[in-house]
Amino acid sequence: MKQKGLLMVISGPSGTGKGTLVKHLLKRNNKIQLSVSATTRKPRPGEVDGVNYFFLNKNEFEEKLTHGEFLEHAEVYGNYYGTPKAFVENQLNRGHNVLLEIDIVGAMQIRKKFKEAVFLFIIPPSLEELQRRIENRGTETPEQMTKRMDSALEEIRELEQYDYVILNDDIDKATGLIESIVKAELASVERSQHYWLDLFGVRR
Amino acid sequence: MKQKGLLMVISGPSGTGKGTLVKHLLKRNNKIQLSVSATTRKPRPGEVDGVNYFFLNKNEFEEKLTHGEFLEHAEVYGNYYGTPKAFVENQLNRGHNVLLEIDIVGAMQIRKKFKEAVFLFIIPPSLEELQRRIENRGTETPEQMTKRMDSALEEIRELEQYDYVILNDDIDKATGLIESIVKAELASVERSQHYWLDLFGVRR
Repeated sequence: MKQKGLLMVISGPSGTGKGTLVKHLLKRNNKIQLSVSATTRKPRPGEVDGVNYFFLNKNEFEEKLTHGEFLEHAEVYGNYYGTPKAFVENQLNRGHNVLLEIDIVGAMQIRKKFKEAVFLFIIPPSLEELQRRIENRGTETPEQMTKRMDSALEEIRELEQYDYVILNDDIDKATGLIESIVKAELASVERSQHYWLDLFGVRR
Repeated sequence: MKQKGLLMVISGPSGTGKGTLVKHLLKRNNKIQLSVSATTRKPRPGEVDGVNYFFLNKNEFEEKLTHGEFLEHAEVYGNYYGTPKAFVENQLNRGHNVLLEIDIVGAMQIRKKFKEAVFLFIIPPSLEELQRRIENRGTETPEQMTKRMDSALEEIRELEQYDYVILNDDIDKATGLIESIVKAELASVERSQHYWLDLFGVRR
């Protein structure tokens, strides 16, 4: 009997360095892999079906949607994006840990459909550092920056709906914390008890 | 504002190498310290009050017991042993992680009184290895060994009442897993949300 992998859903406001953190984690840890989304948008040059995305036409996507085949989905600029349930479950059953970087709305859709997933919220080290990072992008008016800052703070309030908070101060430390969470979760009684009780032949 | 430390309660059947694991963990990790028990037994040569135990007389112990000052207690060969609540809470409030090695009965007493504690169950790598370890003690009759083996299996069944299962196959791996659990638990939203919401001034 093999233990099932862990589905990790990662969110966090912009300016938290979430994307860089995820890349670093995937590079460093070969037991964690990124989920592949389905989309109706056209492939860009170099994008490979089944690697970057599962490319579907609108009819295909809507049919899968009707059959409940997505853990979450959204429409962005007229294109659908979604997380294919079968792909994720297949990876987890093979014992792989799957990572999904997604916004809060999508994360909460998954929370409802997939109780075993673990929800991680990435936060910046401080208000000042968040402001600095937003300002450093340098392309925005003061008004736009204030708006981004407000929306980041609005999002931080939502951390209550997640399971773990990852402070992204030092990227190696943050990566290590995520790895610790994977190890701890896989050792939780909830996830591992059947395995152990079977191994020792003492299942109730 | 400082984050509170974590109270870890560790149990497991004999033959799991629990004691050695705890020693290794304390030596390697200076952020984890052992809880000091109170007892009515006489100090042995070299034992220091407040370090090895808090030595109390029977009246003192019983009075504290009446006032609910122990997280758990037991009577062994006519002596009382107990975990002083004030000592543990004081350490946790100072941000120290506290480790308590105790049997299942004691652990379940703590479960009732101290919801924030985390319960770790140590198991041997396999039935065969457990048997080998019990046999290697070499001092027992076959009958006594069968009895010890049965009681170990009885205990393993109780892992369902714990939060995490620690496989003690490789001592460094097991120690690392406990350290991962500490990190993960301290980053849990439940334990850290007030800290973060205050830091960003977005407490609801």
